[in-house]
Amino acid sequence: MYQTSFIKEKDERAKKIADTLISQGIDAIILADNANLYYTSGRIFNGYTYITSDGKEQFFVRRPIGLEGENIIYIRKPEQITESLKQLNIKLPKQIAIELDTMSYNDAKRMTKIFDMAKIVNASAIMRSVRSIKTEYEQNKLRESGIHHDVAYSHIKKLFREGMTDIELQIEIERNLRREGSLGQFRISGQSMEIFMGNLLCGDNADNPTPYDFAMGGAGLNPSLPVGCNGSIIKPGMSIMVDMCGNFNGYMTDMTRTFYTGEISELAKEAHKCSIEICHKIEGIARPGVAACDLYQLALEMAKKAGLENYFMGHKQKAGFIGHGVGIEINESPVISPRSKDILQAGNVIAIEPKFVIPTVGAVGIENTYIIGEDKAERITNFTEEITLLY
Amino acid sequence: MYQTSFIKEKDERAKKIADTLISQGIDAIILADNANLYYTSGRIFNGYTYITSDGKEQFFVRRPIGLEGENIIYIRKPEQITESLKQLNIKLPKQIAIELDTMSYNDAKRMTKIFDMAKIVNASAIMRSVRSIKTEYEQNKLRESGIHHDVAYSHIKKLFREGMTDIELQIEIERNLRREGSLGQFRISGQSMEIFMGNLLCGDNADNPTPYDFAMGGAGLNPSLPVGCNGSIIKPGMSIMVDMCGNFNGYMTDMTRTFYTGEISELAKEAHKCSIEICHKIEGIARPGVAACDLYQLALEMAKKAGLENYFMGHKQKAGFIGHGVGIEINESPVISPRSKDILQAGNVIAIEPKFVIPTVGAVGIENTYIIGEDKAERITNFTEEITLLY
Repeated sequence: MYQTSFIKEKDERAKKIADTLISQGIDAIILADNANLYYTSGRIFNGYTYITSDGKEQFFVRRPIGLEGENIIYIRKPEQITESLKQLNIKLPKQIAIELDTMSYNDAKRMTKIFDMAKIVNASAIMRSVRSIKTEYEQNKLRESGIHHDVAYSHIKKLFREGMTDIELQIEIERNLRREGSLGQFRISGQSMEIFMGNLLCGDNADNPTPYDFAMGGAGLNPSLPVGCNGSIIKPGMSIMVDMCGNFNGYMTDMTRTFYTGEISELAKEAHKCSIEICHKIEGIARPGVAACDLYQLALEMAKKAGLENYFMGHKQKAGFIGHGVGIEINESPVISPRSKDILQAGNVIAIEPKFVIPTVGAVGIENTYIIGEDKAERITNFTEEITLLY
Repeated sequence: MYQTSFIKEKDERAKKIADTLISQGIDAIILADNANLYYTSGRIFNGYTYITSDGKEQFFVRRPIGLEGENIIYIRKPEQITESLKQLNIKLPKQIAIELDTMSYNDAKRMTKIFDMAKIVNASAIMRSVRSIKTEYEQNKLRESGIHHDVAYSHIKKLFREGMTDIELQIEIERNLRREGSLGQFRISGQSMEIFMGNLLCGDNADNPTPYDFAMGGAGLNPSLPVGCNGSIIKPGMSIMVDMCGNFNGYMTDMTRTFYTGEISELAKEAHKCSIEICHKIEGIARPGVAACDLYQLALEMAKKAGLENYFMGHKQKAGFIGHGVGIEINESPVISPRSKDILQAGNVIAIEPKFVIPTVGAVGIENTYIIGEDKAERITNFTEEITLLY
């Protein structure tokens, strides 16, 4: 049943979007991307959210039948939207925002034809910006995911058996996450990135480059999904980095922890320690007004100072960022990269992942998710950060 | 390592695409969609496949570093493609096909600017058509997935424990599929459909409508992913329909089987029998030249004749198709629907899923994947079709 408690939250979100529309002189926005439908309605449906600059929403729905709630109008095709708006006495827009970064060319062309009276602007940037500031409701969803994420990670040690391959261990962690309530799904903006329930990297497989824009790589089990586990047997001296799905309610926390077996090199232990120090340092200074690019530089400087630059954010292939916004999707704003123009704002939720790839050992380091508050960064992934001996 | 055995196959596929380009008077095609990159190169990379009407391919790659193979050109941005083509003495196209159904509006606009000398046509339809005829190599990949799929399903009965919820059973099946080699990933064309590793429906949850365009529904565990299990306890008298991920090598078989506990109604048993009969009937007549819409009509008539029309393809909300092509993605051509214009061709691989939703019992019926041969339809999902008692 549709939660009545969500109605106030929904209206607040519509108001945030409407305020942005007003500030940019835009009359209306139309949204079709699942992440944006979920943000504006609290659920996924097949159709469109339409919001005008006065904050009024309409939901044009194709499927499913029988949706509860207000302002729901059933349509068979998007061409019926303008006729519906006229019947509702809603003035057709002179400027309309459409998701030009995610909507397909053909769908967007169709939409511009439907709104042929209007000038088209890009809704994707607007929604990226609005969604980067999480409401209190969203922050609580993320805190909730963080708690489940912690519990699931606390079981990892006991899931390990000597002689296991990386994928065998990953499968047991997947099952454990699912039993803890993980929805499994990794929602990623855009079509080019793919992963199944997260990444586990063991030994030198961590140094296999991936085509995807994740922080770490791995060869994968098949060329159709070249990321993560490649079937390596977990052996003494190897690190095992676990970076798996924290989506327990539609909002994703991102957390990485590293384990090892036998003895691992001092270099690997130092690099892991450096990762923790970078996270703590960033946690101490990440505040509204801080430039994302400065956080990147700080992390890089700390890695350099520790003599670990060669291994920082990958060894053969390096990632171009040390952190990113998270929420409904895993790749939200702000981006913590050298050329990022983003400035931290209160309500941002960011994952910080300063990682190292040490040849013959594997990937080490941690990742935490933080809520940027007015005067502090709140860590919401709290499983022990130390590198943990599996056996 | 990049398989040299794949080179001949890759060239054959390029030739199939080139033949279509020639027949439509198109000089070149540029592909960025992961499914099309995998089809043309046998792997996923971040970049573009460029094929000219003489069947020559170039792979413009951003990531990962160090790809093995021929005709690989590293680029930082797509604007470098035309310069590279000039250096390679490849004539710039007068007509170029771009994936207008899947590429975002902004990416497609950027691409049309890069190829501003050319008329733009839609590559999506071309690739849908080419990929709908599987090569022998692809058919073998699908046969291989089918065998693993069968093995994984043969373990379902022993995974069940009395008192389990639907999601608890699904999690055990997920683990089993993964241990059998399932990559987990459900590749779906377009952005609007989402599912995690497939669908398990128990009891009346099968009658909860979904926004997604799958044959069956289910409320899901969270409004952010409204499909499948909703936490129902599996009780005597309920059916349990399992429709889970058969992707073992980048090619997906689609198979559904139904289980039950205690005693279920005669109506449910009859409907399940009718589903098997429809599949067998279609298996007997699905040949090159047969119209997809006729297969749909045949299935509908058989359901009507059995007095089961009310329950056919859903009860409260009905699906608009009884089958679909499968391969790299789960929603390929041809589509077996009332208004489909598709005519079966040798090399099509189709999933047929005539299903019923019986109130108070749940979903019943089966789904098989078939390769359409010159003179027969070959079933490649062979786990027992009978409805199976769990306990």
